[in-house]
Amino acid sequence: MTDWLDTVRFNIDGLVGAIAQDATSKQVLTLAWMNREALLQTAATREAHYWSRSRQKLWRKGESSGFVQKIREIRLDCDSDAVLLLVEQVGGIACHTGHERCFFLRLEDGAWHDVEPVLQDPKAIYGDG
Amino acid sequence: MTDWLDTVRFNIDGLVGAIAQDATSKQVLTLAWMNREALLQTAATREAHYWSRSRQKLWRKGESSGFVQKIREIRLDCDSDAVLLLVEQVGGIACHTGHERCFFLRLEDGAWHDVEPVLQDPKAIYGDG
Repeated sequence: MTDWLDTVRFNIDGLVGAIAQDATSKQVLTLAWMNREALLQTAATREAHYWSRSRQKLWRKGESSGFVQKIREIRLDCDSDAVLLLVEQVGGIACHTGHERCFFLRLEDGAWHDVEPVLQDPKAIYGDG
Repeated sequence: MTDWLDTVRFNIDGLVGAIAQDATSKQVLTLAWMNREALLQTAATREAHYWSRSRQKLWRKGESSGFVQKIREIRLDCDSDAVLLLVEQVGGIACHTGHERCFFLRLEDGAWHDVEPVLQDPKAIYGDG
């Protein structure tokens, strides 16, 4: 039964934007991309999967870092071209920079300022290599 | 001073994804798109502006409905290709369907279910015409 997948309007590249929001803190963690397979795997395994545009491959969030996103809810928007995931962020770190989330830059006085702490050194997350 | 705009990595269509989140309730309201001008106008006027892909024009959110999004914060993500707006949603309705927000469809048992109320009839918001 994948009728629900046929409802989703993937773009010309076969992708749909997918927002991950922490189900507890309500912080918006990431905006990533899913192809049909990523959305199917996300629903089937209850762990977030995305399409890596830079690596051009399916990517299970946390496969290197261990910081997986466990799915609480999957939402679709009114015109079926955006997904919202409510997740439990394992490790409390969603961003490869070691920040809690990717949106740590705030516009102030005409410049972007990093206003959130690095919780763990990326070298410790991914190793030196 | 638009150095901060030069930091943003617009895609091949000149667009960047922009999430709007209610600053008070923390609900994720919408995922829309901005070109450079939309982001500039958003920062300058403190009201959300987007690029309408269907109408191919700059669009001040709420210009028809009155349901503008007043800007509390503008955030950028770690790789500079996604924007997060913290907004005060005037009228409490962000979606053209009359729902509070666009993400009212939840995946359950292999189907999308509308799980949030319509707060106002769209005909009352936009008129019959």
